[in-house]
Amino acid sequence: MQTLTNESTGVVRNGLSVSKLHETVSAIRKVPTLGFLKFHVHNQWSTIRLQSQAKVDTFYGAGQEQHHERPLVVNADEPAVLLGDDTGPNPAEIALSALSACMTSALVYKATAMGSDLESIESEFEGDLNLTGSLGIDPRVKNRFQEVRVKFKVKSDLDAATIEEMVKSSPVYDTFVRPVKVVVEIEKV
Amino acid sequence: MQTLTNESTGVVRNGLSVSKLHETVSAIRKVPTLGFLKFHVHNQWSTIRLQSQAKVDTFYGAGQEQHHERPLVVNADEPAVLLGDDTGPNPAEIALSALSACMTSALVYKATAMGSDLESIESEFEGDLNLTGSLGIDPRVKNRFQEVRVKFKVKSDLDAATIEEMVKSSPVYDTFVRPVKVVVEIEKV
Repeated sequence: MQTLTNESTGVVRNGLSVSKLHETVSAIRKVPTLGFLKFHVHNQWSTIRLQSQAKVDTFYGAGQEQHHERPLVVNADEPAVLLGDDTGPNPAEIALSALSACMTSALVYKATAMGSDLESIESEFEGDLNLTGSLGIDPRVKNRFQEVRVKFKVKSDLDAATIEEMVKSSPVYDTFVRPVKVVVEIEKV
Repeated sequence: MQTLTNESTGVVRNGLSVSKLHETVSAIRKVPTLGFLKFHVHNQWSTIRLQSQAKVDTFYGAGQEQHHERPLVVNADEPAVLLGDDTGPNPAEIALSALSACMTSALVYKATAMGSDLESIESEFEGDLNLTGSLGIDPRVKNRFQEVRVKFKVKSDLDAATIEEMVKSSPVYDTFVRPVKVVVEIEKV
């Protein structure tokens, strides 16, 4: 296996440049404000039932405003049983998708930094909602996910406990399991 | 304005069938187990750096297994500054997209149930992350979103306080602001 001390040769592990990864971490360690990230999403309701489009374009990172190579979108809808047109995943499925992508990339970053090769990562997410909560039918029922169950299948030389620690270092995982402050402002136009 | 008592004529408000919406809520009120929803996501790492694909196909709702009309996907990546290829939004942006779609559809459902016409809904989401947390450089720094700021611009006859209450009834909003139990299992393959 290639070692992490061999950075000058431009080692690539799990598709990532190991030297670039270590340079990034070192830069943030030296200048912690380089670790600040700010993400923006603009959402537009289509006026067609429950269809909306979330668009991302710019973000703040590495100390400056950044642009995606092109604007990227996430289209949401609801299935017919929830009165939508089923043209896109629903918001709960998109939330689980975000969780799945974040836990996966956390594993890729951490395993690469540690010098481990990943052969495959696959994962299943299952989340329970109960509409009697969000509809206000039963105030004792939680409106958020009642529980989310995650199963990772990973082919690598890492042990299960290390993998678990790595996937749990995901910011979106932490957003699910701990409270986040969300400030909401309404403007009537 | 059309009234909610006029259900038999098949009133459509905000694109939604008002009678269908009320029938759905009544059915769940009578048989609360009909309000149980279970969403599934399967994520596959591409082995190309930080690209992964989340796929949704089936879900459980209205008392039985349901299928989307076709499998739906959310592709995730990271921008170049975070060592990715920028082929899709990153997990934090997808999480904000889920939040934006859910708060928007919560408003559409609730306003429709209340008999209000919505002319337009637009919203901006901004979320702060600090990599010194997730990288373990500074253990005092939160790994999750430090804060999320949301601004809704709504054209309707609803007052701002009612709109705020409606968008905050979103399950993904509640997932952000309160802790969710996430059970993680790792299988080495």
